[in-house]
Amino acid sequence: MPQTPHIERHFTSSEIVRDIVIGMADGLTVPFALAAGLTGAIDQTAIIVTAGLAEIAAGSIAMGLGGYLAAKSDAEHYAKEREREKREVQEIPHEEMREVAEVFQAYGLTEEETWPIVQALKRQPRNWVDFMMRFELGLEKPQPGRALASALTIAGAYIAGGLVPLSPYFFAHNTAGALLYSVAFTLAALLIFGFVKGRFTGTRPVRSALQTALIGSVAAGAAFGIARLIGGG
Amino acid sequence: MPQTPHIERHFTSSEIVRDIVIGMADGLTVPFALAAGLTGAIDQTAIIVTAGLAEIAAGSIAMGLGGYLAAKSDAEHYAKEREREKREVQEIPHEEMREVAEVFQAYGLTEEETWPIVQALKRQPRNWVDFMMRFELGLEKPQPGRALASALTIAGAYIAGGLVPLSPYFFAHNTAGALLYSVAFTLAALLIFGFVKGRFTGTRPVRSALQTALIGSVAAGAAFGIARLIGGG
Repeated sequence: MPQTPHIERHFTSSEIVRDIVIGMADGLTVPFALAAGLTGAIDQTAIIVTAGLAEIAAGSIAMGLGGYLAAKSDAEHYAKEREREKREVQEIPHEEMREVAEVFQAYGLTEEETWPIVQALKRQPRNWVDFMMRFELGLEKPQPGRALASALTIAGAYIAGGLVPLSPYFFAHNTAGALLYSVAFTLAALLIFGFVKGRFTGTRPVRSALQTALIGSVAAGAAFGIARLIGGG
Repeated sequence: MPQTPHIERHFTSSEIVRDIVIGMADGLTVPFALAAGLTGAIDQTAIIVTAGLAEIAAGSIAMGLGGYLAAKSDAEHYAKEREREKREVQEIPHEEMREVAEVFQAYGLTEEETWPIVQALKRQPRNWVDFMMRFELGLEKPQPGRALASALTIAGAYIAGGLVPLSPYFFAHNTAGALLYSVAFTLAALLIFGFVKGRFTGTRPVRSALQTALIGSVAAGAAFGIARLIGGG
């Protein structure tokens, strides 16, 4: 597969970072918001711990399995489209040659200027198929074993994130006290997570930290308000 | 921006479908699993409704805001990289010409064969920058207004999905009866959602329906088991 080692390394690490971000963003936010919300309505830490752990189990499995199937389905989609391109290159080469030329004509090149590329690809059917996959269809070759790695990364990040806001409820004697620690721990975790995420994704780290903390706070605030409205009424 | 209308239409509809899938997959699964889990531990429908609505509020806001910021950050990333490519094309054109040639050499073309493309792009700096964005960096131009549309689509899908498993708890007199209806409604919704999702994403619909139902069931089963283990103990 024609990819320089540099591009491939970049691709792999960004996929893992993306999976950790997906899992941890929701893991820090949703269980935090749920625990805060329930604290607005229920005065027993045991029920909140039960609900929180049930949520972490459900969320990590749902997101992990979802990630697994999404990666599997990407890989199948790629394989299916590659078979089709392979067939088309063999069966209707002139149509495919026209498509190569069209890719470049969109960038202001004339048909004559694209001619050498079309001719060169025609001599190398395998490279031609790879070229069509990336430049006509915009599909990247999926990494083998991605599906399982993706599932475990997302689920693990969700569990790690979810235990942060829930942990004070394990130890505190009353829900109000637990909520205070939960808010403090989770805000700190959201700020650190947002900062690190910003470093990896190219957003300014401080802004990313504040945005991530904002999402968690707004979600938790809304959950708290709704739960108090219903449960306290 | 050099894109054919066909590609753009495809891009837009697949983005909306993707957002609905993201929101609804989690919306159907996590509140379902939470409600089922709590039914294993708590015998009051009111608490389960409170927890469920708090979860739906938290989840929809967290995912919607997350989608908003992800789309915003994609757009900023694209703009920043485009500025850099623009500068590089002006300041170090020879380096960039070498990079254009490298893109094609990865597909088995010789330097001579890539020459006409490099020369043609050099005469059209704007197209050259667009070309580098897509073919060197693999970045697609983001649609304006995507961030808000994405946020509302994800949040709306999450709420719509989440109300399905929770609705029986509003009306039922006991949690066991509510759980029965919740399982039936949610399984039906997961099967339909999975089937439609398969139609849009190119996976076989029946297989997609079964997979989606499986995710929901496993997540709910795990949440149920964990909640009963803790809450019932």
